[in-house]
Amino acid sequence: MMEGPTVPVITFLSDYGPWDEFVGVCHAVIARRAPRARIVDLGHGIARGDVRGGALALRAALPYAPAGVHLAVVDPGVGGERRAVALRLAGDGRTLVGPDNGLLTLAAETLGGVLDAVDIGDSPECLRPISATFHGRDVFAPVAAALADGAAIDGLGEPVEAADLVTLSLPQADVDDGALTAHVLSTDVYGNVSLDAGGELAAAAGLRTGDSLLVEFDGGATAARLGRAFSDVAPGELVVYVDGRGALALALNGGSAATELGLEVDDELVLRAR
Amino acid sequence: MMEGPTVPVITFLSDYGPWDEFVGVCHAVIARRAPRARIVDLGHGIARGDVRGGALALRAALPYAPAGVHLAVVDPGVGGERRAVALRLAGDGRTLVGPDNGLLTLAAETLGGVLDAVDIGDSPECLRPISATFHGRDVFAPVAAALADGAAIDGLGEPVEAADLVTLSLPQADVDDGALTAHVLSTDVYGNVSLDAGGELAAAAGLRTGDSLLVEFDGGATAARLGRAFSDVAPGELVVYVDGRGALALALNGGSAATELGLEVDDELVLRAR
Amino acid sequence: MMEGPTVPVITFLSDYGPWDEFVGVCHAVIARRAPRARIVDLGHGIARGDVRGGALALRAALPYAPAGVHLAVVDPGVGGERRAVALRLAGDGRTLVGPDNGLLTLAAETLGGVLDAVDIGDSPECLRPISATFHGRDVFAPVAAALADGAAIDGLGEPVEAADLVTLSLPQADVDDGALTAHVLSTDVYGNVSLDAGGELAAAAGLRTGDSLLVEFDGGATAARLGRAFSDVAPGELVVYVDGRGALALALNGGSAATELGLEVDDELVLRAR
Repeated sequence: MMEGPTVPVITFLSDYGPWDEFVGVCHAVIARRAPRARIVDLGHGIARGDVRGGALALRAALPYAPAGVHLAVVDPGVGGERRAVALRLAGDGRTLVGPDNGLLTLAAETLGGVLDAVDIGDSPECLRPISATFHGRDVFAPVAAALADGAAIDGLGEPVEAADLVTLSLPQADVDDGALTAHVLSTDVYGNVSLDAGGELAAAAGLRTGDSLLVEFDGGATAARLGRAFSDVAPGELVVYVDGRGALALALNGGSAATELGLEVDDELVLRAR
Repeated sequence: MMEGPTVPVITFLSDYGPWDEFVGVCHAVIARRAPRARIVDLGHGIARGDVRGGALALRAALPYAPAGVHLAVVDPGVGGERRAVALRLAGDGRTLVGPDNGLLTLAAETLGGVLDAVDIGDSPECLRPISATFHGRDVFAPVAAALADGAAIDGLGEPVEAADLVTLSLPQADVDDGALTAHVLSTDVYGNVSLDAGGELAAAAGLRTGDSLLVEFDGGATAARLGRAFSDVAPGELVVYVDGRGALALALNGGSAATELGLEVDDELVLRAR
Repeated sequence: MMEGPTVPVITFLSDYGPWDEFVGVCHAVIARRAPRARIVDLGHGIARGDVRGGALALRAALPYAPAGVHLAVVDPGVGGERRAVALRLAGDGRTLVGPDNGLLTLAAETLGGVLDAVDIGDSPECLRPISATFHGRDVFAPVAAALADGAAIDGLGEPVEAADLVTLSLPQADVDDGALTAHVLSTDVYGNVSLDAGGELAAAAGLRTGDSLLVEFDGGATAARLGRAFSDVAPGELVVYVDGRGALALALNGGSAATELGLEVDDELVLRAR
């Protein structure tokens, strides 16, 4: 292994998408303020303004990232009243930077909880004038870069009570009498449907790999197999499996489960063995 | 802050898109020729062949980037007669590399103007044989890498008169008698419409934040509000605001202003207070 | 040129696309295990599950990349029986990492052939528990990072006979009596059609730049010109040219040749001078 000074890491997740220069401009801002920081893009394809989708992706990705500064921007309320914050976590010393709209809080809970929070909306690190619509460039990226460069969080803004941060309320899966009642947390571009339950809840409901399942949903009921991967069912058939995020998911081999069943975020499903 | 030798920066903007290996191959070429250079992707989602769109994005992004080598490729004339150039700018010593089709000149003017220009189409740094269709790989990336590695610009090709470089002609906004006549410079993927005027021209026309505006266009006239962000109007309503590039822009909260009003690049709009 | 320790390079190509966090999570895993490695993304826009398309892109891109660790993931059989492998090549010491489904073998042949192969599916470097659907994160990325960090390939898994690796069978172009019979290898997002023949086969068939060609295909026959670039024909006309990969390709200036002629992968074309 090579030796040398530690390279600070800034991870970056957003809904800016692959088409405009927004992601690149934030990279440019960071490269000026923290020329030695390494930026790890966690993805910029969150659906526009989908705070919950961003929060779930961030919670899924961050445990795999080195401890560092974790920048996230899905910010439909930019230019309005919502706060901009930096959060110092317990545990291995990570810092999260982004809007105070719930985007950061699922990851923060998973990674140890919030020790300190500051309002960075008027931080001395901001680029001025601060535009009303591009806080990624003018607020979040420069503050993340300053933190990666060694700036102390308490010099970046006024303290905020952790208990006052905006949180997301997620649906809650439940097991009762051999049936697992779960909800759609998110769907991906292929129409795979991720639920608010992991494999342990399936086990608690007595469902075993290989079982044929009955899946009830608002529009009716259908058969699926509890498998490990798409290849466990024939093309055109439904499989319930544990996806890359560790969540139970419903997929149609060769198609879109979301479209086929007409499923949307928060819809309820009941799974039981047939 | 950490110390160490300065890391040369190459920014990169193109219309290669996220689907093919073109961007990646250019990165690979740079990594071989300039292994220590840091590449900052400013975005590769410019509409294919849209030289003006690329020039506007480059002008918007570069002031936020560290001084370095700035590579840009939107090149519908590749394989034809257009020159390939490297431009050394006045000011903080930036170098621009790309096709001589106007792509580089808006940024060059903003950043200090061109000191020296050379024709790099047959540079000793080119990868040979030079393909007729992929000058990003064979001409522009290797020349940009050589510059980042310390090569002198005048060893890269024959001098070109700065006055002979291809320039873009943009429309010109105008204020007269309380009316702002502006034009569509570009539209983004969300249908937001960016104009050839900044907030100072709106002020010169006597328009103030919060004003209700009449917006006249080729297809008719409509109402809009002069605001700071989307959230200043209700869903379905039009807002005129200063966008992330510093330009007046027209957006439909929750929809596409470009589609709703049938606006295209260069269309004229007249804005006045109602 | 600056001096310093060599930076290990990991190239990365996949079909994960720009929308989900999959690419970013693999970057995160690499950044933890090999913090000093430089990742060069060769592209993540391969059509989902298109192993051959990925293999062709990898073969086209790798010769331009520095020797290093070359990670590639197009893996429709993930979670099934297919092996996961690392391949050490002859030549300049590159290592390829990915699924054993043919994805790596076109590039391996081009770059010198396989010296050693190991099955990495249960490597000590894997992240555990290994998910059934995200081997990019749990198998391929950590093994690639370990190799970039200096791990020896033979400590990563059990040896595999190179002769037992899965290979792809590609169609074979042929010249006979002034006619070039070729096949569609791939099409890009613009509908340009890349063939299994290079410029040397066109020359062997007696076709010269500027020639007017007759192109016969399953649905009929059409005229095209043998040119160097799109600009050699008028809008709406077909050009046959050598594309950035060095392959003969068929394009429609201003349109999609694939759509216009109804061409799909493996379709046969016959080209001759008119």
